[in-house]
Amino acid sequence: MRVALDAMGGDDAPRVAVAGAVAAARSGVEVVLVGREGDVRAQLAGYTDAAGLPVDVVHAPDVVEMHEAPASAVRRKRDSSIAVATRLLVEGRADALYSAGNSGAVMAAALFTLGRIEGVHRPAIGAVVPLLSGHCFLVDAGANVDCEAYHLLQFAQLGAAYMEHVYDVRNPRVGLVSNGEEETKGNALVQSAHALLRASDLNFVGNVEGKDITSGAADVAVCDGFTGNVMLKLAEGVQDLIFGLIRGAVSERLRYRLAGAVLRPALRGAARRLDYSEVGGAPLLGVRGAVFIGHGRSNEKAVANGIRTAAAAAGGGLLSRLQASVGQAAGAVPVPRHQAGLP
Amino acid sequence: MRVALDAMGGDDAPRVAVAGAVAAARSGVEVVLVGREGDVRAQLAGYTDAAGLPVDVVHAPDVVEMHEAPASAVRRKRDSSIAVATRLLVEGRADALYSAGNSGAVMAAALFTLGRIEGVHRPAIGAVVPLLSGHCFLVDAGANVDCEAYHLLQFAQLGAAYMEHVYDVRNPRVGLVSNGEEETKGNALVQSAHALLRASDLNFVGNVEGKDITSGAADVAVCDGFTGNVMLKLAEGVQDLIFGLIRGAVSERLRYRLAGAVLRPALRGAARRLDYSEVGGAPLLGVRGAVFIGHGRSNEKAVANGIRTAAAAAGGGLLSRLQASVGQAAGAVPVPRHQAGLP
Repeated sequence: MRVALDAMGGDDAPRVAVAGAVAAARSGVEVVLVGREGDVRAQLAGYTDAAGLPVDVVHAPDVVEMHEAPASAVRRKRDSSIAVATRLLVEGRADALYSAGNSGAVMAAALFTLGRIEGVHRPAIGAVVPLLSGHCFLVDAGANVDCEAYHLLQFAQLGAAYMEHVYDVRNPRVGLVSNGEEETKGNALVQSAHALLRASDLNFVGNVEGKDITSGAADVAVCDGFTGNVMLKLAEGVQDLIFGLIRGAVSERLRYRLAGAVLRPALRGAARRLDYSEVGGAPLLGVRGAVFIGHGRSNEKAVANGIRTAAAAAGGGLLSRLQASVGQAAGAVPVPRHQAGLP
Repeated sequence: MRVALDAMGGDDAPRVAVAGAVAAARSGVEVVLVGREGDVRAQLAGYTDAAGLPVDVVHAPDVVEMHEAPASAVRRKRDSSIAVATRLLVEGRADALYSAGNSGAVMAAALFTLGRIEGVHRPAIGAVVPLLSGHCFLVDAGANVDCEAYHLLQFAQLGAAYMEHVYDVRNPRVGLVSNGEEETKGNALVQSAHALLRASDLNFVGNVEGKDITSGAADVAVCDGFTGNVMLKLAEGVQDLIFGLIRGAVSERLRYRLAGAVLRPALRGAARRLDYSEVGGAPLLGVRGAVFIGHGRSNEKAVANGIRTAAAAAGGGLLSRLQASVGQAAGAVPVPRHQAGLP
């Protein structure tokens, strides 16, 4: 598996991207670094073993910045790192793509260049959320801020297929994010989606609230991209808040500080379990290619794990499995024909 | 200040409610327990000092159960504890109301019996979220799952007025919950609300993400009730998850367990800071009365704190302050005339 890496995406690019690529390549994944060749090679030169690693460089002179309007930037900058990297997938020169850059631009490039899987209305971002044991896959984590019920049904189909294919979860339990477990709860969107999910072939376990998600009641949690993105960022915030409170409480007395020093590795381990950088990248579900989006603040470990995730997920007929998931139910669901190209 | 307590609301009622009332009364708050008089007095009899406390009992033969459809149950059961307690406010026999019962029923009873403050379209639930230092007031925390932009503007006005009046926050910073800080982020509702908030007299600090909220970037965080409720429950879930991870990590080695025993009070202190029962109740903003809603799983401490919060907030012209907040901007905002009575 060869993974194309947008070397200009993310904070402190290309330094962090190249460091992550080197780490991933050391564990055996082939990586194609796409970006300003001079800058990328200068970073690579810092690694004495780089010449022996399965790392290629493909030149791309332009960069889509984080603040740019995604669709127009991708259209205008045809030789941006993200555009060139996406073309490598079309040309068969890479099997998967990972970028920690402007996520809207990644999506736009994927839609323009790769297109959607047949039958998919709106590609969605899936985020793997670590739990006490196992994971929950949150779809949509931010691609589509305004959704219709049949979009949510498809997010569920794509999410379940991904969990089955990549995480070996048999017949994944699908929950619908809501403000109460009862079928009558939810806003208008959720109530409509509930009916569609109930009527589908999916293993639908009903509405899930935050505590159901964190306690592992569902393998896939479905919501619109606004709600999903707000949830992900709130979870990060609450985590920071709690560890901040703990640090504050521990610093209050000498005996707490001493005990805290002993416990530090255990607390770090708990924090690491929740660390986004352990998971790496979030798949863009529904485009014709294995595309993974990284956190804009991805560090070296996050990039390396994102590349590994992309390499591991891309194989074994992922795309045909995703296509089958939406194809199966396509006849059962009324679908407007006027779907816009971009979310 | 006399607080009417729905003694039949919440888990394990009336035992927990009476215990909370006794605790609040011991700290000097007058409480009127509303519920099945025999059951309530039987619980009261368990407290040897009850006779000397400022606690009254008012009989209400019916109970609205947690699973009942709120509006119809309140209409049908005219002598339910929540209906009778609400009437005490109208009759001037109580200054505030607290219930940990069916929150929809509390809202329905408040709307039917007290009505809305003039100019208010939709009453909203405000939740006080504890932070590292200070609080953030999340509005709406669950009353209105489908909203229009002008509802969100009013939630902001009511929330800011409440924070100013009850928490002495001068010129509260109002943030709009979104999936990104940039003005262009957000779903259609949030983008419209952003424009209204920007044009208002409020101290609008722009969009806030989860991490901005938990780091204290806003005194008031505004969102629709679906998003707010999902956020609150997710925060509880993440908290449980993190403390679960910490417990697991600490149990792994003997020296961690020993250090953990020393640190237990510090960790408990951190957890307590986030405990909903420390805050007690969430005000129902926009009805003509000081109405506070408790968590259905409220324990004795939560009920006692809820009663104290209600007593403290109710005085000093809270309602006229809230009315002024929406009155000020009423001319500036286009408002449909056909607002439904119930959210």
